[in-house]
Amino acid sequence: MSLAPWRSPLSRSLHLNRSLPHSRYLQLATITKEGRPANRTVVFRGFFPDSNQLQIVTDTRSEKISQIKHQPWGEACWYFVKTREQFRLAGKLTLVSEDCADRILQQARLRAWQQLSDSAKKQFAWPDPGKTRTEEEQAFASAQVTADKPLPNFCLLLLNPEMVDRLELRGNPQNRWSYSLDSDSQTWLTRSVNP
Amino acid sequence: MSLAPWRSPLSRSLHLNRSLPHSRYLQLATITKEGRPANRTVVFRGFFPDSNQLQIVTDTRSEKISQIKHQPWGEACWYFVKTREQFRLAGKLTLVSEDCADRILQQARLRAWQQLSDSAKKQFAWPDPGKTRTEEEQAFASAQVTADKPLPNFCLLLLNPEMVDRLELRGNPQNRWSYSLDSDSQTWLTRSVNP
Repeated sequence: MSLAPWRSPLSRSLHLNRSLPHSRYLQLATITKEGRPANRTVVFRGFFPDSNQLQIVTDTRSEKISQIKHQPWGEACWYFVKTREQFRLAGKLTLVSEDCADRILQQARLRAWQQLSDSAKKQFAWPDPGKTRTEEEQAFASAQVTADKPLPNFCLLLLNPEMVDRLELRGNPQNRWSYSLDSDSQTWLTRSVNP
Repeated sequence: MSLAPWRSPLSRSLHLNRSLPHSRYLQLATITKEGRPANRTVVFRGFFPDSNQLQIVTDTRSEKISQIKHQPWGEACWYFVKTREQFRLAGKLTLVSEDCADRILQQARLRAWQQLSDSAKKQFAWPDPGKTRTEEEQAFASAQVTADKPLPNFCLLLLNPEMVDRLELRGNPQNRWSYSLDSDSQTWLTRSVNP
């Protein structure tokens, strides 16, 4: 697979903003069953090897799971504070949960689990997210987790962009590019567009 | 109108993050005609007077206009870097463009225009956003704008939240609240929920 033309500017942004931990946070929009948008912050966990797919992790108990099963298209908006750049990345989302039979994807799920901090791992043992909070603090503290086996509700989520919009707010006028993947030839078209 | 219960924590977050200009940036998700999510960064321009509606400004030539006309529901995701808090605000969007007959809304549109910086005003005179860039730099520089009359394509956008999700990442466990507006009684219900 060839590196998409938006990968190099995105790598540059990640590098220039690397001193800010939140530069790896992006907002992922999906669609609810009622046809309304949902939008939340997620953490970028690197690219799936030899691909242009962004890795994110999530909990199978979260609302986005049923949303993605119903409509797998998502759009991420990633704003870099220091360099004042925005990337919008639209494409199909793939859920890699415990029952995924693909060995390569399952290996990636295990690797993503292993790379989580202990406190992030433990969140997957917390009571059901979004439900009314009734439990004592110890329900959140007592989890035992191991590195070699992800908890069953741990899910890897892949975003495979087909349309990318890149905006540099610095400069007068600003600069903006549109990247689109041609589905037949699997080649990317890059256009300079008006900001 | 009464202040929604999420207004006070949001004001607090804005205050605590006020040293960071980008703390007024949030990501607004809408739906395309094809039923896919769209997501971009917008700037919070304060609340519409005596309401819980967030003010945003936009250009009638931007793609979100037709999206909102087709499906007026949106969800904004607002992450505060310094205090590590997230607000998700879902509700109906209202476009206030040049042809809006409501006098109060039209006054708010004028006020929003007047409060823009000169360079932000001039962006509304730039060539069509998103179109292939063919014009010279001077096409972006030559605009004349006046404070007393918004350009015809200047649009005020209001987000009237009916569901708000608030997450504090600080703390172990984290804290999370769900706020929902009862449409009959127009009162807000607040629940503490699992993070």
